[in-house]
Amino acid sequence: MKQLNRDFVEESVLLASTLKWILLSSFAGIVAGGTTSLFLNLLSYGIKITSSWSSYYLFLPFALFISSWLVIKFAPEAEGHGTEKVIESVHKRNGKINLKVIPIKTLATIITLSFGGSAGKEGPSAQIGAGTASFFANLLKLNQDDYRRFVICGISAGFAGVFGTPIAGAIFAAEVLYVGRFSYRVLLPALFASYISFFINRYFGISHFRYSIDVGSQNDFHMFIYMVVFGIVVGIVALFFIKTLTFFENLFKEKVQIYKPLKGFIGGIILIFVVWVTKSTDYLGLGTDVIDRAIHGDELTGLSFLGKIFTTSITLSTGGSGGILTPVFFIGSTLGNVWAQLVGGNIAMYSGIGMVALLAASANTPLAAITMSMELFGVQTATYASIASVVSYLIVGHHSVYPSQILTFSKT
Amino acid sequence: MKQLNRDFVEESVLLASTLKWILLSSFAGIVAGGTTSLFLNLLSYGIKITSSWSSYYLFLPFALFISSWLVIKFAPEAEGHGTEKVIESVHKRNGKINLKVIPIKTLATIITLSFGGSAGKEGPSAQIGAGTASFFANLLKLNQDDYRRFVICGISAGFAGVFGTPIAGAIFAAEVLYVGRFSYRVLLPALFASYISFFINRYFGISHFRYSIDVGSQNDFHMFIYMVVFGIVVGIVALFFIKTLTFFENLFKEKVQIYKPLKGFIGGIILIFVVWVTKSTDYLGLGTDVIDRAIHGDELTGLSFLGKIFTTSITLSTGGSGGILTPVFFIGSTLGNVWAQLVGGNIAMYSGIGMVALLAASANTPLAAITMSMELFGVQTATYASIASVVSYLIVGHHSVYPSQILTFSKT
Repeated sequence: MKQLNRDFVEESVLLASTLKWILLSSFAGIVAGGTTSLFLNLLSYGIKITSSWSSYYLFLPFALFISSWLVIKFAPEAEGHGTEKVIESVHKRNGKINLKVIPIKTLATIITLSFGGSAGKEGPSAQIGAGTASFFANLLKLNQDDYRRFVICGISAGFAGVFGTPIAGAIFAAEVLYVGRFSYRVLLPALFASYISFFINRYFGISHFRYSIDVGSQNDFHMFIYMVVFGIVVGIVALFFIKTLTFFENLFKEKVQIYKPLKGFIGGIILIFVVWVTKSTDYLGLGTDVIDRAIHGDELTGLSFLGKIFTTSITLSTGGSGGILTPVFFIGSTLGNVWAQLVGGNIAMYSGIGMVALLAASANTPLAAITMSMELFGVQTATYASIASVVSYLIVGHHSVYPSQILTFSKT
Repeated sequence: MKQLNRDFVEESVLLASTLKWILLSSFAGIVAGGTTSLFLNLLSYGIKITSSWSSYYLFLPFALFISSWLVIKFAPEAEGHGTEKVIESVHKRNGKINLKVIPIKTLATIITLSFGGSAGKEGPSAQIGAGTASFFANLLKLNQDDYRRFVICGISAGFAGVFGTPIAGAIFAAEVLYVGRFSYRVLLPALFASYISFFINRYFGISHFRYSIDVGSQNDFHMFIYMVVFGIVVGIVALFFIKTLTFFENLFKEKVQIYKPLKGFIGGIILIFVVWVTKSTDYLGLGTDVIDRAIHGDELTGLSFLGKIFTTSITLSTGGSGGILTPVFFIGSTLGNVWAQLVGGNIAMYSGIGMVALLAASANTPLAAITMSMELFGVQTATYASIASVVSYLIVGHHSVYPSQILTFSKT
């Protein structure tokens, strides 16, 4: 009888806590999804305006100057790429994010991306989502632990809003805080926020990519060996990307001691130079059209992935505002595309797998990568993607595009 | 230059360790997949023979007597359901498993299941796979840490061999050892062993279920609320199952002090009595035909899930040999089936989701459940299954069908 009573009390506590988090995280999904869909709509409006102009990128020096100035002047804590800042805030400030981050990050990112800065939109989305969540967490007077969980909902809401993959968004948020630890405590909140934000973004007209990849015969055993080799290649490219990014960040931070916005100006000039040399604007902006072509199976020429590594490093290290995952998808899919041509493989499939495997390696999120491959490409492609993703995740070692991730284990 | 050198050394170590584990785990997949496919083929042969007889279940008292006697006499450490024993061995004996477990568990399980004992085949598969791995780990003189990882490959090999879901098999193995901790260190080994075992089992004629569920309009918002409610129901039923199982285990362990195999005899008589009362053999054996009917969308009548909870608890607590996940899938899918009829929902969909959500709750493996729903039913069903799975996982609280799981966090 006593046992029955105790069980009943325990069950009531679990039920109450689960329902509380369903409500809280749905609310987080609503507010974070609302602000991110506003941001995404404004961004696509900005890109539409500038892209009507063929030489829009000539304004890049001014655009990066203004982006950098805006952030330094009004919200210096919003410097750097978005998700990284949210991870840092969760680990160091219990998730507290200044409200000013939201308008400043919105404006700076739109200016950076519309004029051709090479960066992503999921990072600012996560930052804007988490910032909104932090504001409401203050209003709701949440305790420290709940506060952090509530803010993390902003990461999944931002991710799902941008990429349209709610399950991967939730798993990404639970996986990205640490290297080698999955935060089960945030799984339910992140999942609900993810779905609600996904719905809201859809409702407000944000469209998401969906690819159909025909992998041919499933479970071809040779493919496993090919995937191991490809996973090693992706891991090494991820490492090269992280090293290049760090190199330019240190260079512009320590070696170039001038007024910060001027660094943005220099960055803009370098990017114009890249366009002039390559005679292409492919390496600028979000680059989603290139990702689309890669995964559609078009034979892309040249070493696009190297160009994108360079332009992204320059944009983010000189003061441009934006995220890092869209470039990761660009680099991964174009790498897969070129690799497939080299080894005579299925171009669309390698491009899709390259995209998620580079995510697994550069963000240390193999589970999010596997889930994303399932949501975007279906289970057949995921069969192979899972192999390439776990291999690249190990090969990249203890490096990350998010230096604030806390390392909890050794990969060897 | 120094930095470059250091990077090169670190990369070489990572590459060597990754390749080492690809080879080791492929080898584990070959040996574990080999023994499990032999076991599964013998089992299906056994079931084929007995099922040609309409009153095969009348031998149950003798079958459970012999199963129990075999295990007690020759491999007492193999008592109980399989995966649980592997978890215990990993936590308490660094993964060491006696070689005798393999033939004894094979024989005892075939006798139990062929004559109608209610249990699963994935547990013994995992145990047989892990036992084989342990044998070779001894031969290879692996160090303690490698030994454990190598044995864990047996769990994923067993799971993937039985259910044909390699990614879920790997995630299950990395997730099932602890409540609330994901073992990233075993992800790559588990994944390779999983795939290799899946191929080997396919090659040796083991067939796997694949269902196609039409969920109708995806992303219907109402469905989210329905899924929360259903997740709560599944969580409570999981709790009831775990409590019932524990109740009978304690009853037959502590209150009934007789020669152990005689308990099996009594268990067999109770099961015959169930057939006599219900006028059905549906609650006996593996019950995969009932799972098939449930997920196919047939309207099952009665409270099958209660019957199966009872017969499984009796079988496993009186000394029958077998696993627990196939019963979990039976209970979950028939619960979903009945629930769908009650609330007027899509019967096939609720049955499929009930199956994986009960897995999430009773084994504390929400990620494996979500992945499994993707692999078996596709991404559309997984959309809803993920919600029901994380809710049921929280609602079940700190209970598990695997008492050896180590609890690492509080769910409230």
